[in-house]
Amino acid sequence: MLSQEMINLGQVRSVIREMFEYGNKRAAEIGRENVFDFSLGNPSVPAPSIVDETIMKLINEEDSVKLHGYTSAPGDMNIRNIVANWLNDTYDTTFTGNNIYFTTGAAAALTITFKAIAEKNDEIIVFAPFFPEYKVFIETSGAKMKIVKCRESDFQIDFDALKAAMNENVKAVVINSPCNPSGVVFSRETIEKLSEILRESEEKFGHPIFLISDEPYRELVYDDIEVPFVPKFYDNTIVCYSFSKSLSLPGERIGYILISDKSFNPSLIFDAVAGAGRALGYVCASSLFQRVIPHCLGMTADIDIYKKNRDILCDALKEYGFDLVSPDGAFYLFVKALEKDANRFCENAKKYELLLVPSDSFGYEGYVRISYCVSTEQILNSLPAFKALADGYRNGEF
Amino acid sequence: MLSQEMINLGQVRSVIREMFEYGNKRAAEIGRENVFDFSLGNPSVPAPSIVDETIMKLINEEDSVKLHGYTSAPGDMNIRNIVANWLNDTYDTTFTGNNIYFTTGAAAALTITFKAIAEKNDEIIVFAPFFPEYKVFIETSGAKMKIVKCRESDFQIDFDALKAAMNENVKAVVINSPCNPSGVVFSRETIEKLSEILRESEEKFGHPIFLISDEPYRELVYDDIEVPFVPKFYDNTIVCYSFSKSLSLPGERIGYILISDKSFNPSLIFDAVAGAGRALGYVCASSLFQRVIPHCLGMTADIDIYKKNRDILCDALKEYGFDLVSPDGAFYLFVKALEKDANRFCENAKKYELLLVPSDSFGYEGYVRISYCVSTEQILNSLPAFKALADGYRNGEF
Repeated sequence: MLSQEMINLGQVRSVIREMFEYGNKRAAEIGRENVFDFSLGNPSVPAPSIVDETIMKLINEEDSVKLHGYTSAPGDMNIRNIVANWLNDTYDTTFTGNNIYFTTGAAAALTITFKAIAEKNDEIIVFAPFFPEYKVFIETSGAKMKIVKCRESDFQIDFDALKAAMNENVKAVVINSPCNPSGVVFSRETIEKLSEILRESEEKFGHPIFLISDEPYRELVYDDIEVPFVPKFYDNTIVCYSFSKSLSLPGERIGYILISDKSFNPSLIFDAVAGAGRALGYVCASSLFQRVIPHCLGMTADIDIYKKNRDILCDALKEYGFDLVSPDGAFYLFVKALEKDANRFCENAKKYELLLVPSDSFGYEGYVRISYCVSTEQILNSLPAFKALADGYRNGEF
Repeated sequence: MLSQEMINLGQVRSVIREMFEYGNKRAAEIGRENVFDFSLGNPSVPAPSIVDETIMKLINEEDSVKLHGYTSAPGDMNIRNIVANWLNDTYDTTFTGNNIYFTTGAAAALTITFKAIAEKNDEIIVFAPFFPEYKVFIETSGAKMKIVKCRESDFQIDFDALKAAMNENVKAVVINSPCNPSGVVFSRETIEKLSEILRESEEKFGHPIFLISDEPYRELVYDDIEVPFVPKFYDNTIVCYSFSKSLSLPGERIGYILISDKSFNPSLIFDAVAGAGRALGYVCASSLFQRVIPHCLGMTADIDIYKKNRDILCDALKEYGFDLVSPDGAFYLFVKALEKDANRFCENAKKYELLLVPSDSFGYEGYVRISYCVSTEQILNSLPAFKALADGYRNGEF
């Protein structure tokens, strides 16, 4: 009587969500301050003050019918032009508002993009470890998700594995840099080599292959790490951007799809995106938040707090003997479990009230994800627990 | 290289949108005040002041991380409970927050609901005239849309036609009362009879049949017309509600799905809805606007303006000899064209700068939709044009 597939999606909670619920239960039992919950990727620093100031200003100055009214489905053209111009100034590109389609966050940008491009028998490649919802979004579009594992040495792309995965059915490749869950930023060298392989494959198989760049963490990088701007390297790029993490607005659902003006047919791709947005029920992104965006381009919440958390945690974990994957961006640490089975390792961590997410759900075994978008106090208070966990393994307690 | 289906949806503009674009072009040529554009169903009165006041208050008083942060996917449980309690107080029902799933407007509520219930070979019945996007939303879910025409005498349901359309594959029936485009409110008698037929069909075919009630215009009724609350009449009801029109917030995309607590398995239906929301990329409805809702339940924008517009227009059109369908709700008049071909009639209306939408795109021939959510000034200024159009037909000019 109902779609069994949808029931399954609604009932099977993600491991992340389960860990979070366990944390709430445990907090009720022993007090929130005694549970070290590192499960959720929910921004912990407030939106920059310009966001709320702009909302107030808009309410005071704009006509209500316009402020809260429909925009055209891809967004207000004036605002789309402002975003395009800002990108052009920042990245030396040549976009116009016609390349921008505002979305209800990055998840919508992804579901719309997949739906716009997917045809029968299509395969879409993702690099493990990957954001688990990719599987749901890709399969909903009718395409098949194909996993290529990153090389373990540095969690950059394993190019031999990628080449082996390419075939005529591959319609797109998704990257997510800075990466959830690894925190890794793909280097310029990686993006260049990836672009080269994709161009060769386009040539070989005789059709365009999209590079879909999922970029909610673009601005969340530390220590002057470069995040290469993908459309500069590869023409058939579609960027799925979100302001959720950069502006700490995840609940407001505002982002955009950027279709590179260098892609094989930007206006046709745009039409397909508009059609997919329509088919999925996205009438327009929030009119109010669209109007906030021009005032906040290039700004971020105070990410120094994330950097501070990362530095404290990285230094301590290394000292306790943990192996960390290069923690350059986003607000995640990807840490090698102290035994092969990450699920078992996470169960043992729970004994110290440490809530970590095993890496299996990200398509990669033997690691845990630690979300450090928490209070610095929690980080500091959790350190003895991490030390005790490492000591426990060293002493053969498990 | 792209989904042809999505390209088509993106490229083929709706007749409504085309008429609107024509209006903009014409306004540039002869001045906005000389074009009588009745094409769009876009609220023309501001949101009630409580909306913006509440936004300001929330910004001043709430923690930013919470205010703009993720809620759970179905919405904040506290707010869902408030909505359920308000419904219970208003309609004498027994809902809880577990029956409510907040959505990004009614379009999302519909796409999510269809996706949640649709299985292979399913048919979903709509009553013509109907909101044209139903076809897109239903077909995207994989189901087939089946049209049952309303009887022309009063645009209530033609029950013989409905009975003839029922078969074992019918999974759901969609109603939209007050109706876009007819403005008709289904009477209590209609809802009772519809419920009776659906219950008989459930019995006959041995499975539940959903009554999906699309209610963005619930509060937009005039002259003490009763809008029967559908879950009181039929157990397997799913209400798709939006605050877009009642609160004049169409650009902010906030609404909800209400799964009747009397339906055959509310929690399983809820799971399927949650799964469908996830699959389509809806992470949560705007956190800010969710929090606005408890302060505005039961309130509306100043709909006296719509009533005034309707009364002026109805009286005048009748005087000029037009046949009108009972104009009880929403902000649409459904008027019989003065010739059989509504498209040709609309072309002739354009000669008087009257932009009306032919009814064919709503699945019904020979009528036009007039959206009277415009300024009263436009209504008054347009009257001579309507008169001249009627005179033109009377004098055999076309």
